[in-house]
Amino acid sequence: MIQTKGYAAQDASTPLAPFDFERREVGEHDVQIEILYCGVCHSDLHQVRNEWGGALYPMVPGHEIVGRVVKVGEKVDKFKEGDLAGVGCFVDSCRHCHSCNEGLEQYCENHLVVTYSGLEKDGKTVTQGGYSNQIVVDEKYTLKVPENLDLSRVAPLLCAGITTYSPMKEWKIGKGHRVGIVGLGGLGHMAVKLAASMGADVTVLSTSPEKEKDARELGAHNFKNTKDDEVMKEMADSYDFIIDTVSAPHNYNNYLTLLKRDGTMILLGAPPAPAEVIAANLLFKRRRMVGSLIGGIAETQEMLDYCAEHNIMSDVEVIPIDYINEAYERMLKGDVKYRFVIDMASLD
Amino acid sequence: MIQTKGYAAQDASTPLAPFDFERREVGEHDVQIEILYCGVCHSDLHQVRNEWGGALYPMVPGHEIVGRVVKVGEKVDKFKEGDLAGVGCFVDSCRHCHSCNEGLEQYCENHLVVTYSGLEKDGKTVTQGGYSNQIVVDEKYTLKVPENLDLSRVAPLLCAGITTYSPMKEWKIGKGHRVGIVGLGGLGHMAVKLAASMGADVTVLSTSPEKEKDARELGAHNFKNTKDDEVMKEMADSYDFIIDTVSAPHNYNNYLTLLKRDGTMILLGAPPAPAEVIAANLLFKRRRMVGSLIGGIAETQEMLDYCAEHNIMSDVEVIPIDYINEAYERMLKGDVKYRFVIDMASLD
Repeated sequence: MIQTKGYAAQDASTPLAPFDFERREVGEHDVQIEILYCGVCHSDLHQVRNEWGGALYPMVPGHEIVGRVVKVGEKVDKFKEGDLAGVGCFVDSCRHCHSCNEGLEQYCENHLVVTYSGLEKDGKTVTQGGYSNQIVVDEKYTLKVPENLDLSRVAPLLCAGITTYSPMKEWKIGKGHRVGIVGLGGLGHMAVKLAASMGADVTVLSTSPEKEKDARELGAHNFKNTKDDEVMKEMADSYDFIIDTVSAPHNYNNYLTLLKRDGTMILLGAPPAPAEVIAANLLFKRRRMVGSLIGGIAETQEMLDYCAEHNIMSDVEVIPIDYINEAYERMLKGDVKYRFVIDMASLD
Repeated sequence: MIQTKGYAAQDASTPLAPFDFERREVGEHDVQIEILYCGVCHSDLHQVRNEWGGALYPMVPGHEIVGRVVKVGEKVDKFKEGDLAGVGCFVDSCRHCHSCNEGLEQYCENHLVVTYSGLEKDGKTVTQGGYSNQIVVDEKYTLKVPENLDLSRVAPLLCAGITTYSPMKEWKIGKGHRVGIVGLGGLGHMAVKLAASMGADVTVLSTSPEKEKDARELGAHNFKNTKDDEVMKEMADSYDFIIDTVSAPHNYNNYLTLLKRDGTMILLGAPPAPAEVIAANLLFKRRRMVGSLIGGIAETQEMLDYCAEHNIMSDVEVIPIDYINEAYERMLKGDVKYRFVIDMASLD
């Protein structure tokens, strides 16, 4: 077994603290990655505090992982020692269901092995995530990371990037589309960059007028204050897509009515309680409300290559790992532009 | 002006009663239709009782109209005296917005002239519907009715038929699709017939096990009791489409979880209150929830021709017009298989 250092939650209410644990030996299809950076996703906090239930402790969170390959198994042909590599929200899946066969492993119908607080396919080994100095992953579930990007800014692409990229490809968002982005956080700021890069006319829809300057710097063409009833009236029936990245409770109907006929509201956040939907808002303009969940391995690779080609990265605040508990508190207040990323050198 | 006889509501709380009124003279693009049958749509009752607001009284309801052309304007070329003709939920629209230009007049962005309790394009003349002996409509908004069908059974196609047909075409429902139909009323029974005719595997999802025999007679391949938790569990993730025709308050989440990945729930009913939606039910299987509203004129004609070709008609109970108030009470209780249709000869 491989001795590994990380930070873990021991239960739902104790701060994260240093934790030593073991990774499996490198199997014939595995790569061992020295983790350089790991992004801090809001879902890490939900899981650490067991807000979604089913948490497995001790829990080493982290599923926005970039690093360098230090060892490869005998049958690995995608990677060699020294290559950059990335790991996202899952590290294995059943590999034979319809979804896996279609490259949509994130919707695996049998067993998606999530990167942490999940069970390996043996049904008993608990997975541990990227707040650690190394990880061992099957090469099929490992991404190639382009060499020309700032790695600390690449890490969040593995979750925030693919989560916003995937529905844009699914719904063919691009030139000629008016796209509204709700929520300017980790997901939202990536949605702005990606939608703009694809040629869409991008508007940030926000309740915080002070975010306008930042929104425009990220690439938004427009900024609208959704607390202003006049502004909301003017925007009625005017968007092709609204990408809603908010996980806090909020009113979907306010946004549905901003969609054109045949417009689509894409939900990426899962608020803790059900949201009310007025059916007439869907019927009378044949509008759509759809969900989307991260992306498959092939599409994640496509996204990384796309970002390299278009020089798209996350805006991050790099932190040492012993700052993680404070970072969580700031994340809860939305006090980060736009993603904390742990510099794993700070573990030593 | 043309003297016309009908049945009207004088206000939201008085039973419908005989009412004489005037139709406009036949304009150069108009056809005058002697109404033979008019279907009784649940929305007639909502409007008569002003449950949606904005009711205009006296109100002659009815938007499932079939009859025979008795006079045509000078410039009419689609119809001649003696032809069968149909009129649905609207009798005019702006004719120049995006939706009108695309043949989606039902989503007209400026002024959809609904068949009754609406205003003509002059902004002042109140429209009156099909519970009457004749109607005058622009030929562009008049449908050709095939000669080979039972006219009383054709009438409901003008609303219930097109409302279910349109989303099936939009979403390309057909062979290889598992389709669940929720609500076995006026819309639902047409959805069963149409989906089955298009080659889909059709299941009626119902809380009333006693409806199984009827459902199968209508063409459903399967019937499932949605009150049985075991049955619901077995059906999880198994439908490509669920067509929800229910206007009463009900739980959408129960049905969303029955959809496969990328499955679509099509809402055709507008419950009086907002419904709760759990976003995770959309996210985790990339499911979709969409609305649809009747259909455009060209598509309504396509539907009528399709029904003629496939011998598809509504199952109806033909009533004399003086039975209308009792019919409303029975409709409220779901006591009709599956549409009341007024025989307009009873007006004399």
